[in-house]
Amino acid sequence: MAGRYALVVTDDAPARSPDWRGALTVSRPVRRLRAGGWSDVEDSLAAEEPLEIRMQWRTAAGEVDRRNIAVTMRTPGHDFELAAGFLHGEGVLRSPDDVADIAYCLDEDVSEEQRFNIVTITLRPGLEFDSTRLERNFYTTSSCGVCGKAALESLEVSGCAAVEDGIQVDATAVMRMPAALREAQPVFSKTGGLHAAGLFAPDGTLTTLREDVGRHNALDKVIGRSLLDGTLPANSGVLMLSGRASFELLQKALMARVPVVAAVGAPSSLAVQLAESFNITLAGFVREDGMNIYSAAHRIGHNLRRRRG
Amino acid sequence: MAGRYALVVTDDAPARSPDWRGALTVSRPVRRLRAGGWSDVEDSLAAEEPLEIRMQWRTAAGEVDRRNIAVTMRTPGHDFELAAGFLHGEGVLRSPDDVADIAYCLDEDVSEEQRFNIVTITLRPGLEFDSTRLERNFYTTSSCGVCGKAALESLEVSGCAAVEDGIQVDATAVMRMPAALREAQPVFSKTGGLHAAGLFAPDGTLTTLREDVGRHNALDKVIGRSLLDGTLPANSGVLMLSGRASFELLQKALMARVPVVAAVGAPSSLAVQLAESFNITLAGFVREDGMNIYSAAHRIGHNLRRRRG
Repeated sequence: MAGRYALVVTDDAPARSPDWRGALTVSRPVRRLRAGGWSDVEDSLAAEEPLEIRMQWRTAAGEVDRRNIAVTMRTPGHDFELAAGFLHGEGVLRSPDDVADIAYCLDEDVSEEQRFNIVTITLRPGLEFDSTRLERNFYTTSSCGVCGKAALESLEVSGCAAVEDGIQVDATAVMRMPAALREAQPVFSKTGGLHAAGLFAPDGTLTTLREDVGRHNALDKVIGRSLLDGTLPANSGVLMLSGRASFELLQKALMARVPVVAAVGAPSSLAVQLAESFNITLAGFVREDGMNIYSAAHRIGHNLRRRRG
Repeated sequence: MAGRYALVVTDDAPARSPDWRGALTVSRPVRRLRAGGWSDVEDSLAAEEPLEIRMQWRTAAGEVDRRNIAVTMRTPGHDFELAAGFLHGEGVLRSPDDVADIAYCLDEDVSEEQRFNIVTITLRPGLEFDSTRLERNFYTTSSCGVCGKAALESLEVSGCAAVEDGIQVDATAVMRMPAALREAQPVFSKTGGLHAAGLFAPDGTLTTLREDVGRHNALDKVIGRSLLDGTLPANSGVLMLSGRASFELLQKALMARVPVVAAVGAPSSLAVQLAESFNITLAGFVREDGMNIYSAAHRIGHNLRRRRG
């Protein structure tokens, strides 16, 4: 690990924060279906890992107070900027002088994988800020642990098992879903501004569609509808997402036991890892004439011929 | 107000939750620039309002315990599903029987505007859940208050003033920014999976570009860089966003005092309200040959002729 990271742990040079360019992309095998045939190729995914932002400062009594501010799923790199920008948005930092130090957490009890996923900002002595405002504005994501591996493990610990094989879906049906979603999106067509999540039957029939400015909300609405209807686990459902597929969206799909998740956009690295770990079929870049399958490809039936790379 | 909302406040029929279709879209005037000329027209925006999710349950001692779980910015409608789906994702709800009741908060101290922005789920007696897990997974957004108006007002209360007029930007320079952003996005071109935020000078020169799986993170990184460089307030900057423009992104821009925000995608209703309230120029659907301007159009210079509708 030594040499791979440019680490600055000083109390005077936050502006020289390391632009740590960790793994911005992750390479993975992917099954690519196109009209002319299918192939197994290597593809690049955007890396996704949790980052925990911590803050510490000296109180009037001279004691050091610490607080964990947020956990956000992010693409590694520029982590000091991310932490500083976040605390600026929360009204804590107003100038570079407000920052005494920014450093990755190097505590001994922090495991190797988590080391570059925790950033602590030390405030300058005497900086005043409204901590009650922070209380209210706290947020963490649903992810547990501050590395991808820990996040996946904690899902297992909390009782999540692999999704059953059950259904088989024809590739043609999946490739028609983005159009079906768009046609059924009444608000999007007016505003161009909404994410959508749709739950389909394996034959391609749309069961539930919800739209929202937030992609998590659209999915929560679909799953909430299923919960209230008593149709969970959704183990014969195909979930179609209008945007990209992130870890948190896959986590929600796993909780609802959805076996096939398809997205118009790209999946993140951690979304693919989750899908693979829990036997969820994950397809991305779904178009009328093709898609990429990232995991559990056995649920997608097709009669395409294999072709070279 | 009576008659506009289908309200169900019972303890036995959560599955009949009202599909309250409030204002899914909001109509607004917009200045539309195209190669052939410009016009002022009415446009539809996706509605965005905060929703607070609350949960209550009876403890073993027979007392009622309550907790505010989350505030999320959402498009109104299907709010009971959103709350139920959220709590399912958090592992609290597993079947419709776990829900004793779902209702909008009708407390007398809740103002008229907030009434349909607070949903309380009452759990069935005896339902067990891991409240420590919830503690960790709490989140709220940075928004204050649970209606759009309150969110805007609280920004004023916290000392945010309107952004100064200062800069003038040529429309041509703005319309070139999406291409400049894409060309400078090294990871996106590989993965197709990343949001980007770019800070430009008024003449169209790219100053800082950051990419991330999360659009908030990309913007936090750009603003964090500026903070650490001592270049905040960014009052001669033009911010270009690769996706849509939501309330929270505009809030971050306001904190950094950015006068012009341009987005490749659509803005939400509340993003436009914020921009208008604080004199931020907000452009959406920015393309090589056109864009829509939603607020403070006076900062965008062009020599196009006005044309009808």
